[in-house]
Amino acid sequence: MSLPTPAGYYALDNHSVRTFLNDLPEMRAKLGGAPESWAVEEVGDGNLNLVFLVDGPDGSVCVKQSLPYVRAAGESWPLPLDRAFFEQSYYRAVGAHVEGLAPRFYHYQPELYAFVMERLSPHIILRRGLIEGRRYPHVAQHVGEFAARSTFATSDIGATIEEKAEWTASFAKNTSLIRITAEVVFSDPLSESPRNRWTRPELDGLARAFRSDSALKGAVADFGWRFLTTGQALIHGDLHTGSVMVTETDTKVMDPEFSFVGPIGYDVGAFLANLVMNYLAQPGHATAADDRREQADWVLDQVPVFWNTFKTRFLALWETSARGDAYPATMFAHPADQAVLAARREAFLDGVFADAVGYAAVKTIRRILGFAHNIDFEWIADPARRAPLENKAAQLARKFLLEPHSFRTPEDIVAGAKAI
Amino acid sequence: MSLPTPAGYYALDNHSVRTFLNDLPEMRAKLGGAPESWAVEEVGDGNLNLVFLVDGPDGSVCVKQSLPYVRAAGESWPLPLDRAFFEQSYYRAVGAHVEGLAPRFYHYQPELYAFVMERLSPHIILRRGLIEGRRYPHVAQHVGEFAARSTFATSDIGATIEEKAEWTASFAKNTSLIRITAEVVFSDPLSESPRNRWTRPELDGLARAFRSDSALKGAVADFGWRFLTTGQALIHGDLHTGSVMVTETDTKVMDPEFSFVGPIGYDVGAFLANLVMNYLAQPGHATAADDRREQADWVLDQVPVFWNTFKTRFLALWETSARGDAYPATMFAHPADQAVLAARREAFLDGVFADAVGYAAVKTIRRILGFAHNIDFEWIADPARRAPLENKAAQLARKFLLEPHSFRTPEDIVAGAKAI
Repeated sequence: MSLPTPAGYYALDNHSVRTFLNDLPEMRAKLGGAPESWAVEEVGDGNLNLVFLVDGPDGSVCVKQSLPYVRAAGESWPLPLDRAFFEQSYYRAVGAHVEGLAPRFYHYQPELYAFVMERLSPHIILRRGLIEGRRYPHVAQHVGEFAARSTFATSDIGATIEEKAEWTASFAKNTSLIRITAEVVFSDPLSESPRNRWTRPELDGLARAFRSDSALKGAVADFGWRFLTTGQALIHGDLHTGSVMVTETDTKVMDPEFSFVGPIGYDVGAFLANLVMNYLAQPGHATAADDRREQADWVLDQVPVFWNTFKTRFLALWETSARGDAYPATMFAHPADQAVLAARREAFLDGVFADAVGYAAVKTIRRILGFAHNIDFEWIADPARRAPLENKAAQLARKFLLEPHSFRTPEDIVAGAKAI
Repeated sequence: MSLPTPAGYYALDNHSVRTFLNDLPEMRAKLGGAPESWAVEEVGDGNLNLVFLVDGPDGSVCVKQSLPYVRAAGESWPLPLDRAFFEQSYYRAVGAHVEGLAPRFYHYQPELYAFVMERLSPHIILRRGLIEGRRYPHVAQHVGEFAARSTFATSDIGATIEEKAEWTASFAKNTSLIRITAEVVFSDPLSESPRNRWTRPELDGLARAFRSDSALKGAVADFGWRFLTTGQALIHGDLHTGSVMVTETDTKVMDPEFSFVGPIGYDVGAFLANLVMNYLAQPGHATAADDRREQADWVLDQVPVFWNTFKTRFLALWETSARGDAYPATMFAHPADQAVLAARREAFLDGVFADAVGYAAVKTIRRILGFAHNIDFEWIADPARRAPLENKAAQLARKFLLEPHSFRTPEDIVAGAKAI
């Protein structure tokens, strides 16, 4: 490795990961047996990191380590190691509030920028399951619960000024990944950038039209500003269907390395966008045996399930667990105040929804015209089949941004997606 | 002093401040002569700190030091010393961008939580000058320039993600003063709080009516939430007329210990509110020789001067000095984009104005019904004369909050203040 790294850092491999775990008494005990007997597999298929699954006779763990560059791009795109620090910080901050919905966290090794957590089995990535035509009856509810519980607990409603200040201060330093989001999600896709790619030549016209759509760019830039300046809660920062591991009954949210104190709607919008993109991509995965219509409808039906769970849980927590400094109980002590407070809460959630629609649009456009695409579309091998579906997603996103008043409820999103 | 303080800290007095300065070669040189020859005066008349003016044969300086409690309340209200750290950090962060509009900064002594800066002479506090019936032909322009330059330079338009993250992270720790603002400005005045006071019994009815005005409280709480969650720029945090020192020609902004990365409209609204309150208080300072009508009109005329200067300068800087990550130039590269970008800029400034009106209202109400009052009203000795003027200010503030669409321009504010 030619990039400079701090003293004590080395990239783990199938051998040294055993030594590392064997030196941690609790991990050694959890795995059982001798290190040579452990099965080790490196499975990091994401864009950024090393991920080892380690199975011993008594148990198993997962080890995740930062590399000093973007794995998907290679050493030509260096990236600070500290994203592992922020990822483990996020798990520690929200873990107690989302019990059962995030992997159990075991250990962080600062100088290696590596941490050990629960190895999930037989979970698969939600996005893959949906592409394969599987359904997960609880997943939309679970992710809605996760988004509500994690953001409420770290907001100025669920936490004190002093508690939130710790997260704000610490996660503000996650600048390398905040910058990646600002560039790769918000500014690149509608700019001329060598990092952009799209289905060519089928979508050349779309790319050109979007890049010269001034109103669209204005709306995206407004959301970019909001992304950088809205510190509502500690957010996951990348809550798409590729960050969720599932079985029929269990759901775990992963990969919070993009976390920082930002807009709640960004997490909500990420999941919404990826449900809608999966819905629109389903015809591309149709076979003679399965036209995927039922699967597509089921996926889209998860949009209201997800939002309604999020909203209901957030409001319920606000009723039972408000201990922060915003909307303080002292100001609303009279019974007559309760109707107004309830209306402010509704208005607050309406604002989160409006934000979510905007961020969903931005995150959809970037998957069609920007650097990182998603397999919902990429796995449709035939570009002649893929491009029209990608075009639908992009056009729906454009409507989200330019006609926001038409998308005030999850049902509006469902109707819009069906009509496109 | 009975409150615990860190090692190395002691409260300066007229003797030890000499030793402190004499040990700093640059300060010794600036003052000239022997320490015994220096004239020292402690003038801290604010709520929080010690302030020494030191004059030597060759020059003079000002020393400001934190006390471990709220000076206005005594040791029964302890307050961390670190506000001096944040105050000097703010001067260092914005100093280069507001040259001539803030005192020159000379030295910070960490363990004493004390710093040395330019001693201003013959400046007086703007609020006092306005109460005395004086006019300052440049002050509204100067403060508008200050607000625009300081916030632009520290926003995501004028600074990079990495630069802003440093301020966000550092100033997020200014929790003791952020908490004071959240409580004393936003929540206490419309709650039952032993810290509240008002002109009694004349305004008992007003206090009762406001505390039971659910809609008003809802609007104030919305702005409280925005205050805690909007990280647009490094703001002064207390930009009222008591934080501005003036001569006929010169203006210096002082006392940024409440600074943090917050909403730009909070600084703008603070100055607006205090101009309007001074305008409404002028009849209380009328004498047989001077009915103060001209002075009042002049003060109110400064509202549009201040806002127009702020807006013009902010937009001009956006044209010439945008180097941040929001609204990036790469997205607006086509000539055809310029009209949309200009419209987004206008909309952005409209948003700052709307925020400013809301914060101005909140800051007005707290001066009538909360803990810290201002001398614009307090120096009207006769409560029968003072109370109706305070009532006007409170009623205008209520209109700002409940009829925001009627106050979209500085001229609307002028008209509203005249009509009340």
